[in-house]
Amino acid sequence: MRGAVLYGPRDVRFEERDTPRIIKSTDAIIRISATCVCGSDLWPYRGISPVTQPTPMGHEYCGIVEEVGSAVRSIKPGQFVIGSFFASDNTCPNCQVGYQSSCQHAEFVGTAQAPLLRVPLADGTLVATPDVPPDNLIPSLLALSDVMGTGWFAADAANVKPGTTVTVVGDGAVGLLAVLSAKHRGAERIIAVSRHPSRQKLARELGATDIVTERGDECVARIKDLTRGVGADAVLECVGTQESMMQAIQSTRRGGYVGYVGVPHGVELNGEKLFYAHVHLHGGPAPVRRFLPKLVDLVWNGKINPGKVFDLTLPLEQVAEGYRAMDERRAIKTLLRP
Amino acid sequence: MRGAVLYGPRDVRFEERDTPRIIKSTDAIIRISATCVCGSDLWPYRGISPVTQPTPMGHEYCGIVEEVGSAVRSIKPGQFVIGSFFASDNTCPNCQVGYQSSCQHAEFVGTAQAPLLRVPLADGTLVATPDVPPDNLIPSLLALSDVMGTGWFAADAANVKPGTTVTVVGDGAVGLLAVLSAKHRGAERIIAVSRHPSRQKLARELGATDIVTERGDECVARIKDLTRGVGADAVLECVGTQESMMQAIQSTRRGGYVGYVGVPHGVELNGEKLFYAHVHLHGGPAPVRRFLPKLVDLVWNGKINPGKVFDLTLPLEQVAEGYRAMDERRAIKTLLRP
Repeated sequence: MRGAVLYGPRDVRFEERDTPRIIKSTDAIIRISATCVCGSDLWPYRGISPVTQPTPMGHEYCGIVEEVGSAVRSIKPGQFVIGSFFASDNTCPNCQVGYQSSCQHAEFVGTAQAPLLRVPLADGTLVATPDVPPDNLIPSLLALSDVMGTGWFAADAANVKPGTTVTVVGDGAVGLLAVLSAKHRGAERIIAVSRHPSRQKLARELGATDIVTERGDECVARIKDLTRGVGADAVLECVGTQESMMQAIQSTRRGGYVGYVGVPHGVELNGEKLFYAHVHLHGGPAPVRRFLPKLVDLVWNGKINPGKVFDLTLPLEQVAEGYRAMDERRAIKTLLRP
Repeated sequence: MRGAVLYGPRDVRFEERDTPRIIKSTDAIIRISATCVCGSDLWPYRGISPVTQPTPMGHEYCGIVEEVGSAVRSIKPGQFVIGSFFASDNTCPNCQVGYQSSCQHAEFVGTAQAPLLRVPLADGTLVATPDVPPDNLIPSLLALSDVMGTGWFAADAANVKPGTTVTVVGDGAVGLLAVLSAKHRGAERIIAVSRHPSRQKLARELGATDIVTERGDECVARIKDLTRGVGADAVLECVGTQESMMQAIQSTRRGGYVGYVGVPHGVELNGEKLFYAHVHLHGGPAPVRRFLPKLVDLVWNGKINPGKVFDLTLPLEQVAEGYRAMDERRAIKTLLRP
């Protein structure tokens, strides 16, 4: 089969890769209905995270189960399934408390930009939909594999409740779906930080009530202005840079919550600043598996439509253009169809 | 009057100071019944925080109201009162959400090692006891002014509930009272980190079920051993060094809580380590005022006895010896009687 392989900065190729097969008895092979390019794929694509060898890419997926290993009990061939980018057994102590992305047997699922995918720990990892979905639901179901689950975790980690004032830092797909998550959880006011007109528009469509275009200290000042000088109850950090983290912490009210899901790159938090900021801080790689049953239900019943973040759909063989469009910010998120 | 003044490293003098008087109409003057030396006083005493000029000392206090300013309404001369080390109006937005130590009009109360003390924002800051207390309650009431409120905040910030497994990092007075706080809140297991036999003994008396004497990575490994390999539900960080913070974060289970109240000195948290640790982090200068009414009630009714941490009582004029004894770890905490 042919799939995506990253060779180095801005060098993604669509080329022959080994066809995945069952290796462990707990594996499943799924035929990908749709996959996509993630904002975090851009870190190695841009050379910010080093690429030391040709690397198969892709960690967001949904599709039809083709085959299961002999120990797989609940997942069956023919089912339409979605899984997280971290395979998890869903039974270890970390999974039991809802942190499946820290499963003691976690394995990164990183070869999804391809027609077929091996998913380890299939019973723990995969969630089946009630039926094979109609085509128009595929983008929203695919979004649950990472970006929607991650945006949702940001809102969950930041304790977003009805009536809350929320700020979302980051206007990538995760940030936009953090807006949607905050809205669905009943936030009263949602301030999106974005300077891109098309993303501002989508943020408003997903629930943002205010847009802030400033950055850094000016952004913090603007958010304070909008919140009676005290800061937001909850700030959802969806970027992962030093600037964005400090912006998030400083624009949160005392006793408020920062939910951070942007993978940190070069972030160092000064202990004293954090101490006097008096915020709650929680985040990390989203335990998407915890939220999947609920989010599948919301999509299936038309309550949320996170697929809106896909503004470019390409055949998988054009994966390189999919990366380019996101790198150049021509696309928010690229959906790929094998 | 004569009070304590810090001149430089290990140079505390008991000498003539200006007698405090009402400056603002919201002030009160109180006659100190008891004051004490804080672990955080040792930072400048040891020269770790610089002392640039002779500095009056002391931020823990209780006593009888001597005089109030013309705008003071609820606090009356003759009442026995306790206040926090941060004066607060108790009405601003930060106070209203329970973060009085971040009051928009906060003032540090730093001249309490003396017979008389000016307390700003008296109505917001001071809490009166039901009556003038008997002498044997004074140490426990004094402890509420900082160390007990701070230990309690550590437990509160770390979400300690009935059944929780707790680790307390730090065996100073705050750490010991964090043990008491965890116990009172129903923690099932309380692991105290201490290598000092007298402190271990007091920790056990206050509720510790296990003692760990290791430090750093070995301490983390020991705590993991004691918690089925997953770490504690809640870790109360009561020191403020890089080592103690990392120890706290690493010995918390995924999804668990770190409550940190040790004033950070040179702490830098690596964003990536924090991200993958998957812990909740909350702390800062304890909003003691939030907890004072409840804690006064618990002491008044004999439910808690935080005064146990005072293992040395001296007349105020021997304040220098009080500091020395704590610096040399001969005393856990020194109570001073004017």
